[in-house]
Amino acid sequence: MPSLDLHADPVDLTAALVDIFSVSEEEKVIADTVQAALQAQAPHLEVIRNGDAVLARTNLGRPSRVLLAGHLDTVPVNENMPVRREGTGDDEILHGLGTVDMKSGDAVFLHLAAALREPKHDVTFVFYDCEEIEATKNGLGRIERELPEWLRADLAILGEPSNGGIEGGCQGTMRIEIRVEGARAHTARGWMGVNAIHGLAEPLRRLAEYTPRVVDIDGLTYREGLQATKIGGGVAGNVVPDEAVLTINHRFAPDRSGEQAEAHLRELFEGYDVKVVDLSPGALPGLSAPAAAELVAAAGGKAVAKLGWTDVARFAALGIPAVNFGPGDPTLAHTRQENVRAGEIRQVASVLRAFLSV
Amino acid sequence: MPSLDLHADPVDLTAALVDIFSVSEEEKVIADTVQAALQAQAPHLEVIRNGDAVLARTNLGRPSRVLLAGHLDTVPVNENMPVRREGTGDDEILHGLGTVDMKSGDAVFLHLAAALREPKHDVTFVFYDCEEIEATKNGLGRIERELPEWLRADLAILGEPSNGGIEGGCQGTMRIEIRVEGARAHTARGWMGVNAIHGLAEPLRRLAEYTPRVVDIDGLTYREGLQATKIGGGVAGNVVPDEAVLTINHRFAPDRSGEQAEAHLRELFEGYDVKVVDLSPGALPGLSAPAAAELVAAAGGKAVAKLGWTDVARFAALGIPAVNFGPGDPTLAHTRQENVRAGEIRQVASVLRAFLSV
Repeated sequence: MPSLDLHADPVDLTAALVDIFSVSEEEKVIADTVQAALQAQAPHLEVIRNGDAVLARTNLGRPSRVLLAGHLDTVPVNENMPVRREGTGDDEILHGLGTVDMKSGDAVFLHLAAALREPKHDVTFVFYDCEEIEATKNGLGRIERELPEWLRADLAILGEPSNGGIEGGCQGTMRIEIRVEGARAHTARGWMGVNAIHGLAEPLRRLAEYTPRVVDIDGLTYREGLQATKIGGGVAGNVVPDEAVLTINHRFAPDRSGEQAEAHLRELFEGYDVKVVDLSPGALPGLSAPAAAELVAAAGGKAVAKLGWTDVARFAALGIPAVNFGPGDPTLAHTRQENVRAGEIRQVASVLRAFLSV
Repeated sequence: MPSLDLHADPVDLTAALVDIFSVSEEEKVIADTVQAALQAQAPHLEVIRNGDAVLARTNLGRPSRVLLAGHLDTVPVNENMPVRREGTGDDEILHGLGTVDMKSGDAVFLHLAAALREPKHDVTFVFYDCEEIEATKNGLGRIERELPEWLRADLAILGEPSNGGIEGGCQGTMRIEIRVEGARAHTARGWMGVNAIHGLAEPLRRLAEYTPRVVDIDGLTYREGLQATKIGGGVAGNVVPDEAVLTINHRFAPDRSGEQAEAHLRELFEGYDVKVVDLSPGALPGLSAPAAAELVAAAGGKAVAKLGWTDVARFAALGIPAVNFGPGDPTLAHTRQENVRAGEIRQVASVLRAFLSV
């Protein structure tokens, strides 16, 4: 089993974590390693194991509790292991799988777990499995079912990459299918049939002409989206097709619930067969909550809206204000070129240390 | 080898032909059988073999020549062999593969080949292979290349199913692809991309609003068609797609050449990337030619437009008036339920006998 020095520079700790293979559903080694390191180097914490997740917390009786969560798994290796380090000091660049998504965030949290013996708020750390695959396998979901009291907090911080800035809330995402039916016929006698593909002309017009909302919440700007992601139909080269399906992905600002967003699309596509195939509600930024406002202040007073969907929505659903705050450029996540600047890792660690210290 | 009695009722001859397996590219047995029958029972004809096609003709020095052509192959067997006969007299129904497409037509021609020793016009019979598969393998095309003098005639009659009526000419068919390109992006930041599926909204609108022409030629009505046969696009559930393709089948009346029809579609879809993937020109009915007019008269004076594409277009391209005239309902062709009424077979035989007799 590899070993981790939690008191090391979080940049070195990031490099050590990157070199532990941990593709989703194969997190046993990294979870064992993290658990052993916490038990040995952070004796002030209560540490438990749940599946391949490791949970740790202080029990100091502070009036408020902050939860720091990071997933330990990565997407599949893509010629980007082991870590490659280039340059020096804060301009050093760490290349490799997970440098962005999200072992640099994990490293910051592990470093703070060992370093902060007397934090200002009680702190809970959650290092979990299976974030990169289907939602039903998500380790945080399992913890919510099996150990709900471990998720209680006044603020949750997810270490997902956010360019080292606070990203508040997240947009919801919904996928719908619009299905048009027709009647088959030979194309030589097309008028004897009803062409389902032609039937998509009108919903596709509504979609192409749609102007998505731009919504302001708590000073953050959310830009919605409505995008076709798939279209399909056709039987054979000489047959009028009897079915065609248009799949649309809607990203909606967190001022609308999933039900409201669905109602909006049903109104937009009135007269058509609309089926919701996938729906994850968004999360309000919740930055006005005291602990969240304190964190924003510690980070320099600026926050932006999170547009993608992340596990912050799970906390929002539990009524817990949640933000993304981690090193790395999220647009590099899941690419072979994943890389992060050492200075950004240290800056996130320093903001969180200030926020959590008396 | 099976044997055929060419002097039998063409209904019995149809049943005998249906029972000889002859899926495309496996026509050797049926061609051998037809050749042997013609050589033994129609000694007044010059008979030759070309691949798995059998050709036969009179050489009586008549001022005009009529060509009768039928393909010997069928589509694959679909639980519809051997023949099943039901009922009696003219109301008897023959069920089975090829009863419609087109062994009943072949049977009529074979019957006439043996019966008409002194026809009014010189007569050429062409029984050919591989009509049901790709055009490059078509036996009639091979004969055109290797024995062009055998196709010379003043009128060509194809025994394709036409409900026992004269069908003049045929419509052309063209397939085009309209391709729209875009730029990929994550759907959470859709405005950073260009959605190719949305780009199909406008061509699909033009297509759905298009009114096809109805064209009158030589008293026959051709109804054109413009039908989407396929639509496709999409990368993943959270990606703005960068390519979408709409495939359209155009059926056009024979007053337009392939080039004219293509120009029409390029004008309709101006501004879009249009690619012609398949084009077979139509054939003018040519019913004003003397021999054709005589045949129409013999059939009771009525003719209708052929909307599907058949080998009559090959003859039209050679400057030979050509019609479809055969027993059976063309909409039953290629179905498991193929069946033909005995009376219709006898009626077609009787019209052709009258037309060809002095």
